[in-house]
Amino acid sequence: MATYQPTPEDRFTFGLWTIANPGRDPFGDAVRNSLTPVEIVHLLAEAGAYGVNFHDADLVPIDATLAEQAQIVKEFKQALNTTGLVVPMATTNLFHAPIFRDGAFTSNDPRVRAYALQKTMRSMDLGADLGAKVYVFWGGREGTDTDSGKSALDAGKWFREALNFLCEYSIDQGYSYKFALEAKPNEPRGDLYLPTTGAMLGFIETLDHPEMVGVNPEFAHEMMAGLNFMHAVAQAWDAGKLFHIDLNDQNIGRFDQDFRFGSHNVKQAFFVVKFLEDVGYNGSRHFDAHAYRTADLDDIKAFARGCMRTYLILKEKAQQFQQDQEIQSLLTQIKADDGSMHQYFGAYSREKATALKAQSFDRDGIAAKGQPYERLDQLVIELLLGARE
Amino acid sequence: MATYQPTPEDRFTFGLWTIANPGRDPFGDAVRNSLTPVEIVHLLAEAGAYGVNFHDADLVPIDATLAEQAQIVKEFKQALNTTGLVVPMATTNLFHAPIFRDGAFTSNDPRVRAYALQKTMRSMDLGADLGAKVYVFWGGREGTDTDSGKSALDAGKWFREALNFLCEYSIDQGYSYKFALEAKPNEPRGDLYLPTTGAMLGFIETLDHPEMVGVNPEFAHEMMAGLNFMHAVAQAWDAGKLFHIDLNDQNIGRFDQDFRFGSHNVKQAFFVVKFLEDVGYNGSRHFDAHAYRTADLDDIKAFARGCMRTYLILKEKAQQFQQDQEIQSLLTQIKADDGSMHQYFGAYSREKATALKAQSFDRDGIAAKGQPYERLDQLVIELLLGARE
Amino acid sequence: MATYQPTPEDRFTFGLWTIANPGRDPFGDAVRNSLTPVEIVHLLAEAGAYGVNFHDADLVPIDATLAEQAQIVKEFKQALNTTGLVVPMATTNLFHAPIFRDGAFTSNDPRVRAYALQKTMRSMDLGADLGAKVYVFWGGREGTDTDSGKSALDAGKWFREALNFLCEYSIDQGYSYKFALEAKPNEPRGDLYLPTTGAMLGFIETLDHPEMVGVNPEFAHEMMAGLNFMHAVAQAWDAGKLFHIDLNDQNIGRFDQDFRFGSHNVKQAFFVVKFLEDVGYNGSRHFDAHAYRTADLDDIKAFARGCMRTYLILKEKAQQFQQDQEIQSLLTQIKADDGSMHQYFGAYSREKATALKAQSFDRDGIAAKGQPYERLDQLVIELLLGARE
Amino acid sequence: MATYQPTPEDRFTFGLWTIANPGRDPFGDAVRNSLTPVEIVHLLAEAGAYGVNFHDADLVPIDATLAEQAQIVKEFKQALNTTGLVVPMATTNLFHAPIFRDGAFTSNDPRVRAYALQKTMRSMDLGADLGAKVYVFWGGREGTDTDSGKSALDAGKWFREALNFLCEYSIDQGYSYKFALEAKPNEPRGDLYLPTTGAMLGFIETLDHPEMVGVNPEFAHEMMAGLNFMHAVAQAWDAGKLFHIDLNDQNIGRFDQDFRFGSHNVKQAFFVVKFLEDVGYNGSRHFDAHAYRTADLDDIKAFARGCMRTYLILKEKAQQFQQDQEIQSLLTQIKADDGSMHQYFGAYSREKATALKAQSFDRDGIAAKGQPYERLDQLVIELLLGARE
Repeated sequence: MATYQPTPEDRFTFGLWTIANPGRDPFGDAVRNSLTPVEIVHLLAEAGAYGVNFHDADLVPIDATLAEQAQIVKEFKQALNTTGLVVPMATTNLFHAPIFRDGAFTSNDPRVRAYALQKTMRSMDLGADLGAKVYVFWGGREGTDTDSGKSALDAGKWFREALNFLCEYSIDQGYSYKFALEAKPNEPRGDLYLPTTGAMLGFIETLDHPEMVGVNPEFAHEMMAGLNFMHAVAQAWDAGKLFHIDLNDQNIGRFDQDFRFGSHNVKQAFFVVKFLEDVGYNGSRHFDAHAYRTADLDDIKAFARGCMRTYLILKEKAQQFQQDQEIQSLLTQIKADDGSMHQYFGAYSREKATALKAQSFDRDGIAAKGQPYERLDQLVIELLLGARE
Repeated sequence: MATYQPTPEDRFTFGLWTIANPGRDPFGDAVRNSLTPVEIVHLLAEAGAYGVNFHDADLVPIDATLAEQAQIVKEFKQALNTTGLVVPMATTNLFHAPIFRDGAFTSNDPRVRAYALQKTMRSMDLGADLGAKVYVFWGGREGTDTDSGKSALDAGKWFREALNFLCEYSIDQGYSYKFALEAKPNEPRGDLYLPTTGAMLGFIETLDHPEMVGVNPEFAHEMMAGLNFMHAVAQAWDAGKLFHIDLNDQNIGRFDQDFRFGSHNVKQAFFVVKFLEDVGYNGSRHFDAHAYRTADLDDIKAFARGCMRTYLILKEKAQQFQQDQEIQSLLTQIKADDGSMHQYFGAYSREKATALKAQSFDRDGIAAKGQPYERLDQLVIELLLGARE
Repeated sequence: MATYQPTPEDRFTFGLWTIANPGRDPFGDAVRNSLTPVEIVHLLAEAGAYGVNFHDADLVPIDATLAEQAQIVKEFKQALNTTGLVVPMATTNLFHAPIFRDGAFTSNDPRVRAYALQKTMRSMDLGADLGAKVYVFWGGREGTDTDSGKSALDAGKWFREALNFLCEYSIDQGYSYKFALEAKPNEPRGDLYLPTTGAMLGFIETLDHPEMVGVNPEFAHEMMAGLNFMHAVAQAWDAGKLFHIDLNDQNIGRFDQDFRFGSHNVKQAFFVVKFLEDVGYNGSRHFDAHAYRTADLDDIKAFARGCMRTYLILKEKAQQFQQDQEIQSLLTQIKADDGSMHQYFGAYSREKATALKAQSFDRDGIAAKGQPYERLDQLVIELLLGARE
Repeated sequence: MATYQPTPEDRFTFGLWTIANPGRDPFGDAVRNSLTPVEIVHLLAEAGAYGVNFHDADLVPIDATLAEQAQIVKEFKQALNTTGLVVPMATTNLFHAPIFRDGAFTSNDPRVRAYALQKTMRSMDLGADLGAKVYVFWGGREGTDTDSGKSALDAGKWFREALNFLCEYSIDQGYSYKFALEAKPNEPRGDLYLPTTGAMLGFIETLDHPEMVGVNPEFAHEMMAGLNFMHAVAQAWDAGKLFHIDLNDQNIGRFDQDFRFGSHNVKQAFFVVKFLEDVGYNGSRHFDAHAYRTADLDDIKAFARGCMRTYLILKEKAQQFQQDQEIQSLLTQIKADDGSMHQYFGAYSREKATALKAQSFDRDGIAAKGQPYERLDQLVIELLLGARE
């Protein structure tokens, strides 16, 4: 039996905030002390992670002095150095401080919009200093509780202007960041703008530097809206925009649960892992999750290890899927193509269109042919359950 | 009191299928005979509609001979002529016939993909013959019940190839169509590809002729996923892609209900109407809904009139919103801008970035300022309820 | 135009926690200072409320000394006295303190279960001292994030034992409380036990004193699961178990929003008000909502007034519904009953069954008769929009 | 490796309608011919099922003559005899025929209500003739699309009267039926009355013969509302009301999918199987599902076998859970109870209450103790994935 022991080659990363999560929620206080960033780096290294990511405020308190910041960063770099962990991604906390109560880049208050820009530039400086190559934007409060008082068009314009400005800033500073936009449908606002990975992909094309900007799809966020996460990841990949990914778990139609990866929607998690491995995605597998509020420190460690172990188990199953002769035989049957229709595909020509319009199809005959999806899917379920060979 | 009597200037349209709906559902048979296309044209004209749209199969049965088709089209044109109704939009039925049981453009069977192309070209010919300028694509079965047997990447590629081919066909035939892609998250498949208007906007940018292709957002389809429909419409408008719109109603997280416009989510319907009127959208207001299965013919007429009446009532309220001094005064307060931050917005410059990074912000002072959204929203609710003089 | 000014006869109540809500959420800190209980009483009195309800910890901090508690209660009573407000309901906070991280009555830790009993008895004493007649149980953390580690049967047994014990305590102390159980489907746990009002009604029948125990249905909680709140209220009323009601608003399939009553689901709110007024419900109309996180003090006041104003507007519309001749005429048509079937209804007899089995029905003829629900519903929408005469 | 071959002792049953499903849905026609009842009996027997259930109309067409019915029943009994299959459950189709377009027992039309009674009595006769002991009530159209035109109180009263009548009919005929009520939140109506298993449990207590009436919880129906199905089953079991169960699968917040059991929500299916096996439920495991619309006959067989195989695999895992020392050790830790609190539990006494009120609790100390739910849940996931030795 495999050990499912992660290595840096697996590119597993965690946010500082995921391990530091103190178990506070809308109905209750914090239940545990947060580890310090340095402690978290060591915990993650011990668990086998490749990297650690952060919001500015996870590492440096919002009211730290420059001297305090320097000291914090110095100690953090030492911990990275000691452990070998890297910082592939950084991001800005634009939602926690009360100043962001009506949003950051889309706040109706121009002072807040300007402050959000400032905070992001400073945070980009910090991330670059620590080697981050991907910069994530999650607009935690970019939305509305009522549409009575904010213009969706203005909000879109403001968000675009901010991203255009920050792209230029990145270029100007020589940071070579790729930006990754992260969508979420709601919470903590009633509705967030650009609520899905798809919406972000559409939005990117309206920017000045679309080539710098991709997406950071999050499993839980797409699930909140009941969408198929693998489909969203596939669309991003197809568009060349899968710059980062947030793996966790979530039940549909609920508050943001950020469950341990693979702990709720087993089958969906499998298809996501299978997709990433099949296409050769080589970016971070970032776990944006946290332990249950009932967890103590041992349980937090089990949570972190569990995210990675389940990924590795599912990755092994994705390989078994490719090697399983019965599965592959059904897939061959499903994808049968005798080539007779190839003449009609590919680039348009008038001749092709004319010929196709004249082609006779045995509609009933074709319709009568089913596809063995029940057979195949049952094999997949049994593969997942470890009940094949 | 206003009469809320629709006129052609209101650009209200209905699909043939909406009035013809026989009340069949997964748990029961048809409960009423469908009116003929000619009867529907007359019914809609009498009710005050501007136009009528159709799927190929709504007008011409899938197995009609060319002679039968010619006769049907002739009678339909006569009815349009008599009543003055126009056909602004046409579309293809790629979901009803059993041949499409695994999708059309994304079927694993190449014969089905070829047939879908053929059927769409023929349907485009029919639509063009009747004057349609917008061609809608709703891929009713383009998705999966299990992801075990279909590749999301292949499906995306096939759908793209089909649209590229059909764009060329439209150009080649001189049809001057605009294509409008309609998203839906699920049903009748477990998950449909490109499930939201946002996903469609992202997808369009991967096509050969993105300038020809926009979206047809549908109220009910976005609501099925619990998304804010007005936000989706605003994103499409912002991108210059709002080529058509489907108005109806729906409760979140349910089967496709296609309720009478404005009959369930009153407030959300108001914000949609307000948006369309505020920005000056001048396309069709297409009602893609149907009467309850309990409806008889009189009730179907009431349904059609009700869609339009409610739109007009909400349009009047959108005007009242603009004229209401208390509302406008709150909006002025909400959007207050003393100009002091303007120096930091707009195009990037290094000087601007440097100055902004050095700017001091009174974070607590700014945070302390609330926004009167409860006051404003309560006024909006009272406006909606007719309780503001 | 009516003034919609609430009076004590309207029996509008608010929880201390609703006005005191500091705007803390999972992604951000408190944004405003909470008013004191005394300040809240005065605010509510000024706004026209009838009463104020509380959790033990809303009034008396969990670590207050007895002397401190006495002083707090004294001042609170003075405020009630001054303003005329009453305390119709009290409840226990069994979710905020970290000790409840795995539930209270259903915690796996017997010490927590014992402490929850103690805390509830003390809180019942406090409520009785202030005149409360209804005692609400909302088990904020009575549920699971994973079903791996807690037995649903044990949890049900423990909850039942606790309620049985507390019923006896109430009787023994002569408190004459009625208990009202409040259901919620999820949040802050992944799944809460007894997730709907219906589940609570089923559970009550397994208690030792079902006659003492009813329900406190909450609009937002049923909406979270996408259920029809009026139907749940009707079932409770039908069973004689509508002991209290929590009015607020919520979008389906989201985190607990606790929006201002009537601010989101206008039509559903109308049917709830109509139901309560039609049946003559004479208990509290309790608003368990809070102002948006963007709200300042003026906005909190507007929020409180808005809940009551919207109720009164909808109540007026419920009266108009009864008086609207066109609506009533359609209802008469809908409910037509020529009495010919009465012979088959009511108590069973063998003769009746035999006769009914032999009765001939014109199945097609009956099926052909539709119901004018589109006509009626459109009138209701126009009534709601203030567009009828 | 186990063979997972079902035997009659497993008590697996299917409805005639599940195998006969022709693949019709709201957007498309039937795609395959239905097998006859006799063919279905043989198919199920070959697959290893124990029994077959039916709606009246599944077996006997609604317009069959008595002679036709006699012939159909005779052939069906022969098939049962030949194969050894039994009929543990029967039910009435009160939703398919157009006469039920506004409901059956809750229709506003008294003729429909009377006809529904008649149809049910006749169907009960048929079921009894074939040996059914459980009689299921699923009110497919007992609900509303708008609440404008039907009284929820009247509907409840009518449904209760019908059930009271039919209980007496069963007694009078000596049928010894147990009634099992099946809830569903919506579809094909906008909202169905008594939408959850919990609501049914509450309703049962308002009947004349509550002892005869229990529930038939369905996995998919509870999932549609996003509820935890195992919790609902546990409540029913706790109340002594688990008279039948419908196993299938479903994604949350969607149309009624009736997926193959265990094919979507793997973890939730496990907890359901574990519950049924742990408590010793000895009723039918009824699969109320159907094959994908893409399925041909071979795939329908694979679907039927797959439901049973997955159940058996999960049953094996439930046994492994009980035998896994690491899992059991964590459970022992989780449920630790030193007995010190036992003095406060059980029946109320004034002394007990007094002592408990005086008991001192180390609130912070107790709160500091976490529970190893992440550790345990990860083991459960690995058990499910076949990754534990």
